[in-house]
Amino acid sequence: MGMVGGGEGAFIGAVHRMAAALDGQIDLVAGALSGTPEKSRRSGAALGLAPQRSYPTWQTMVEGELARPPGERIHFVSVVTPNDLHYPVARAFAEAGIHVVCDKPLVHTSEQASDLMAVVQRSGVVFAVTYNYSGYPMVREARHLVRDGRLGQVRKVIVEYNQGWLATRLEETGNKQAGWRTDPARSGLAGAVGDIGSHAEHLAATVTGLELEAICADLTTFVPGRQLDDDANMLLRYAGGARGVLWCSQIGIGAENDLRLRVFGTRGSLCWRQEEPNTLEVQFLDAPLQMLRRGNPYLSAAAQAASRLPSGHPEAFIEAFANVYRGVAEAIRARLEGRAPDPLIADFPTLEEGARGVQFIERVVESGRSEVKWTPA
Amino acid sequence: MGMVGGGEGAFIGAVHRMAAALDGQIDLVAGALSGTPEKSRRSGAALGLAPQRSYPTWQTMVEGELARPPGERIHFVSVVTPNDLHYPVARAFAEAGIHVVCDKPLVHTSEQASDLMAVVQRSGVVFAVTYNYSGYPMVREARHLVRDGRLGQVRKVIVEYNQGWLATRLEETGNKQAGWRTDPARSGLAGAVGDIGSHAEHLAATVTGLELEAICADLTTFVPGRQLDDDANMLLRYAGGARGVLWCSQIGIGAENDLRLRVFGTRGSLCWRQEEPNTLEVQFLDAPLQMLRRGNPYLSAAAQAASRLPSGHPEAFIEAFANVYRGVAEAIRARLEGRAPDPLIADFPTLEEGARGVQFIERVVESGRSEVKWTPA
Amino acid sequence: MGMVGGGEGAFIGAVHRMAAALDGQIDLVAGALSGTPEKSRRSGAALGLAPQRSYPTWQTMVEGELARPPGERIHFVSVVTPNDLHYPVARAFAEAGIHVVCDKPLVHTSEQASDLMAVVQRSGVVFAVTYNYSGYPMVREARHLVRDGRLGQVRKVIVEYNQGWLATRLEETGNKQAGWRTDPARSGLAGAVGDIGSHAEHLAATVTGLELEAICADLTTFVPGRQLDDDANMLLRYAGGARGVLWCSQIGIGAENDLRLRVFGTRGSLCWRQEEPNTLEVQFLDAPLQMLRRGNPYLSAAAQAASRLPSGHPEAFIEAFANVYRGVAEAIRARLEGRAPDPLIADFPTLEEGARGVQFIERVVESGRSEVKWTPA
Amino acid sequence: MGMVGGGEGAFIGAVHRMAAALDGQIDLVAGALSGTPEKSRRSGAALGLAPQRSYPTWQTMVEGELARPPGERIHFVSVVTPNDLHYPVARAFAEAGIHVVCDKPLVHTSEQASDLMAVVQRSGVVFAVTYNYSGYPMVREARHLVRDGRLGQVRKVIVEYNQGWLATRLEETGNKQAGWRTDPARSGLAGAVGDIGSHAEHLAATVTGLELEAICADLTTFVPGRQLDDDANMLLRYAGGARGVLWCSQIGIGAENDLRLRVFGTRGSLCWRQEEPNTLEVQFLDAPLQMLRRGNPYLSAAAQAASRLPSGHPEAFIEAFANVYRGVAEAIRARLEGRAPDPLIADFPTLEEGARGVQFIERVVESGRSEVKWTPA
Repeated sequence: MGMVGGGEGAFIGAVHRMAAALDGQIDLVAGALSGTPEKSRRSGAALGLAPQRSYPTWQTMVEGELARPPGERIHFVSVVTPNDLHYPVARAFAEAGIHVVCDKPLVHTSEQASDLMAVVQRSGVVFAVTYNYSGYPMVREARHLVRDGRLGQVRKVIVEYNQGWLATRLEETGNKQAGWRTDPARSGLAGAVGDIGSHAEHLAATVTGLELEAICADLTTFVPGRQLDDDANMLLRYAGGARGVLWCSQIGIGAENDLRLRVFGTRGSLCWRQEEPNTLEVQFLDAPLQMLRRGNPYLSAAAQAASRLPSGHPEAFIEAFANVYRGVAEAIRARLEGRAPDPLIADFPTLEEGARGVQFIERVVESGRSEVKWTPA
Repeated sequence: MGMVGGGEGAFIGAVHRMAAALDGQIDLVAGALSGTPEKSRRSGAALGLAPQRSYPTWQTMVEGELARPPGERIHFVSVVTPNDLHYPVARAFAEAGIHVVCDKPLVHTSEQASDLMAVVQRSGVVFAVTYNYSGYPMVREARHLVRDGRLGQVRKVIVEYNQGWLATRLEETGNKQAGWRTDPARSGLAGAVGDIGSHAEHLAATVTGLELEAICADLTTFVPGRQLDDDANMLLRYAGGARGVLWCSQIGIGAENDLRLRVFGTRGSLCWRQEEPNTLEVQFLDAPLQMLRRGNPYLSAAAQAASRLPSGHPEAFIEAFANVYRGVAEAIRARLEGRAPDPLIADFPTLEEGARGVQFIERVVESGRSEVKWTPA
Repeated sequence: MGMVGGGEGAFIGAVHRMAAALDGQIDLVAGALSGTPEKSRRSGAALGLAPQRSYPTWQTMVEGELARPPGERIHFVSVVTPNDLHYPVARAFAEAGIHVVCDKPLVHTSEQASDLMAVVQRSGVVFAVTYNYSGYPMVREARHLVRDGRLGQVRKVIVEYNQGWLATRLEETGNKQAGWRTDPARSGLAGAVGDIGSHAEHLAATVTGLELEAICADLTTFVPGRQLDDDANMLLRYAGGARGVLWCSQIGIGAENDLRLRVFGTRGSLCWRQEEPNTLEVQFLDAPLQMLRRGNPYLSAAAQAASRLPSGHPEAFIEAFANVYRGVAEAIRARLEGRAPDPLIADFPTLEEGARGVQFIERVVESGRSEVKWTPA
Repeated sequence: MGMVGGGEGAFIGAVHRMAAALDGQIDLVAGALSGTPEKSRRSGAALGLAPQRSYPTWQTMVEGELARPPGERIHFVSVVTPNDLHYPVARAFAEAGIHVVCDKPLVHTSEQASDLMAVVQRSGVVFAVTYNYSGYPMVREARHLVRDGRLGQVRKVIVEYNQGWLATRLEETGNKQAGWRTDPARSGLAGAVGDIGSHAEHLAATVTGLELEAICADLTTFVPGRQLDDDANMLLRYAGGARGVLWCSQIGIGAENDLRLRVFGTRGSLCWRQEEPNTLEVQFLDAPLQMLRRGNPYLSAAAQAASRLPSGHPEAFIEAFANVYRGVAEAIRARLEGRAPDPLIADFPTLEEGARGVQFIERVVESGRSEVKWTPA
């Protein structure tokens, strides 16, 4: 694979690389890793890229790869830049016929998303968006339980993503992660809502399959001087009558990456927490709480397929992230081999989900500014 | 003490009696325990009341007690009827100069609350409302930490009270508790909001001291045929800029009495759960999570005073409830002895808090019906 | 009831009184509450005893109560003194035909235990030993599950009781609880083993019904200058082939009253913790972990009968303790009414269990001094 | 690297490969992956080995690699066979001057261990034993806290490793893992003690640094027909007076890989659980329980260096395992570069620790057969 972004000082690029490496089937062979040619070169050298494939910019990378014989090009590119570059980079590679893995939120606007979808449709490339939490085996079990009707009809969804790392004005201290995430030019319309609220939206949608109809949001910037929201509370209404609450915050002191989902149906309920991802709490009417644990034979095929270790040897963030990459690899490999991909493996968030996420952010921000209660989703 | 309500088939009356008995300083000596004279008599006999003080109705109880010499009357009455009787009963006893402990929600309307406050002010009786969760030692510790500024300025409050017992139409099965709680004539304007949302409101207000400014509520009746809400989600805005989420539900399958409060300030945060009430999680900026535990010497005087056992011997619901009764007993005893009550003991929810709770319910219901985002609290 | 011990400065006496009072059917009417007549009188006054029944000594109390007409005597006595007085006091009241509730460990030696059993057999009194942890509803559920064969044949038992309060030489600071517990003259042969190891032994025996065959113990006194063990680890062998580990400690810094039991059978296992007593973890072969919770309809009749509140309103230490008193009250009441007691209510630790506990302590101390691996239990 | 073992049907080989791959600095380039030449070839092809380096046997692999020019040989071999092959394979590669990573338990007997140590001393190779649990960041924090004296002098150690997968006679069903682990010829002297008790011993020793002096063990084979122990309970005595309990089991139904360590010192205590490895509970005298969490700035340099992700993005088993490989890679790289290795990175279990582990197993088995209480460790 190739990578755009993820060089010196970046955080998520290293995660993508570990996730891609885990199963021993993806090698990083090309990259335009940083914002300047000099830093890109240094980052490429540090990661052992061949000098001729450690490109100074993503534009030269597209050209350089296209200039190689078809069989010697990267199979796909991983776009792990700050949000503002997702659109041009992903578009260029897709246009060039190179498969794409793109970080979330996909792009800044629904217009960009529509355009990107059109490009991808034309070029026919595989396109994945790294809503990585959906790669957890127990999230797949949750999705299985809900979609299979085991909880009955869903009535209520509570999803929250709480962090505390931006409780003070960290962006003033030179922290690179905080810097771009709180800068509207690079992060987009929204702060916490875009960065983590979008994960919460995706998690709830993945597990429940419910379609959001209306949003009532209250966005706040608690830290003085900050330009984007660092906190949001919202009420949700779903098609079919389910209701929900989504809240996310980056000022929740003590919270690390406290993403939690609770779903309540007419026959049962479930609860999952990202920080203890190997357990899924499930409760059926009038029965004791059950703690389903990753790696056990009583789980669905989807959960089994997403797991690498026996139960009790915990899996975590990187392994879940790796499931997205493994899914993309399977999809690409299936194309190369002229077969249908294994649906249990080629299971990853799609471009459509990424586009839906962009629209979600737009509508939340709109609702936050509105005095009317409900904003259509 | 005397008791109105709490006879055959009732649940909460027995809790009040255990709570009152726990410290060995309150005896039940009179009562009008049920809705009919016959059941009242039977209930009184079962509880060992003297026949002449086991009254057929609450009206005859007021008269009967007043007819006794002043030193031989009950010191206070405990009103544990369904909600619709709180107002006339509490009013009559207060009018008669008898101190009152009244269950929540206090009354049906703010008009009733105002009238009751006027009566109490005239008669000067002690009046407590059994928002019993505020009696937990670790809630008092939480209140101490916030009010003492240890968490800095409060930014965000998340409070939830989740139950699952009304996930099906239990009121059709003859269940007495479900019956009156889902009947607007007896329960009042609201269902879940009145029964448990009011506890959540009180808990958040007790701990934070914040004044609610505006509410945006989404009320739902999920169970077909039910007349009152069995679920509510709401956004909160507090004076001074804090924001919040309150949700309560009676259709959350698997939930028992899952009341939780999280408070996030500029310096720290806390989390408390009613179902594991001996622990209070506290987290300060850049420091490890601390699990404060009831009964330890590092706790505040308020938490110490509310505790009866050494740490590790868990205290629970009845003991917290008993703290309200112990508080009322101290207030009454102090009057009898002509001294100021010990503020660490005479610590119980007041009539004013009960009135605020009634207004909360009214405004939530109003917001639920409104298309405007924010309804003044 | 009457009480011997439990006056000024005592801890457990107050617990016994709250436990006895909880259900409103037991009144404290007589006592010899302290070690000196003066303190006994003061303690009696503080608790509202009639002066003529606030006896200066337990000997005068036996005489005084016997001097009253049969119908006006106490129904039973509660013996809550330091251990050294259990034997003479319990013996005297039993001899006098007064039913007895006695704290554990029952007496100092097996000889005393045998003698006491003979006296009780002669006089025919009801005799209970307050191994209070066996009163928890979820312990009764655990007992039900094991005895009913739901876990198959028991293979392994792990029971531990960890405290940290004696990690320093607290007995030198004037702490009354620490003082007598570390004094061989008052506490008996053993320190931690007698105080809390005995509870662990009883809990394991109650739940499993297994008979202990051999013990291999390692006793330690960690705190310099202390005369009795403050820590013990031991291996257990049971009749029928089950094996176990029991350890107890009073130097486990941070531990409060961390009594835990795990039982592993051929079909399933369970885990219970005293500090979160409303939950019982149960796991069957190849099935998810289940969290059984007090107050739910899926529990056994024994667990239901031991419970006073709906699920989610936690019960705790006092309520469990009160179940012992309620059991004794039922046994006595049944005798008075000439009927068989309700076995679900009259469920309390017997004199035989107390005697077995004394023997356990003796054998553990013997094993601790032995170089031979296994000491018969 | 090269690998011996870990082919078709193996479990732990894949874990080693993921662990080695994670940081993108180790490639698998040679192997003798299975017990037969045919299976070795198939396994090598499946993993993408060049045919000429997919050796039929480990003997031909030693020869084949030695026949390559020095710069083109594997840097190290990873030995992941059943236990019986550890000794000959590790010895041969060490003799050949190739660095070795070997799974635990190291070898079958102390004689083999001594011989292997002599060979390694002669050849000077880097030698690591994959006691992988010591690679967890919070284990390194625990080690730091104890070794730094933060808990005072250690008094007591409780370590347990509980599994349930062998609660039935799984080895009769064709399960390969169960098969060799319960076969004395392949597994060695001990079953549960060798497989998981050895991990428990290593974890306790790593964290505390205490030297074991004497053992009193009770070994049991619960499953009829099984030849090796599937359960062991033991008392421990350490030099300097600390005491301990170690128990391990493979018949604990419901347990997955429940490895837990508790250490109690004169100033504080700690608790760590492998199944929730990102948290370390620490408690100081008279202070609240603290939950230290991986990835936070308040942790030691050792814990920081062992971590790849921010707090709240959980790390788990593979990452801990990868720390052993990263440590070995650093040690080898430092030699190649003629510098001292970074001690925070080159932190892995040594051959000496492996040899100590072999002796531990021998002495435990000896104690299990002895009627004398204490067997020297």
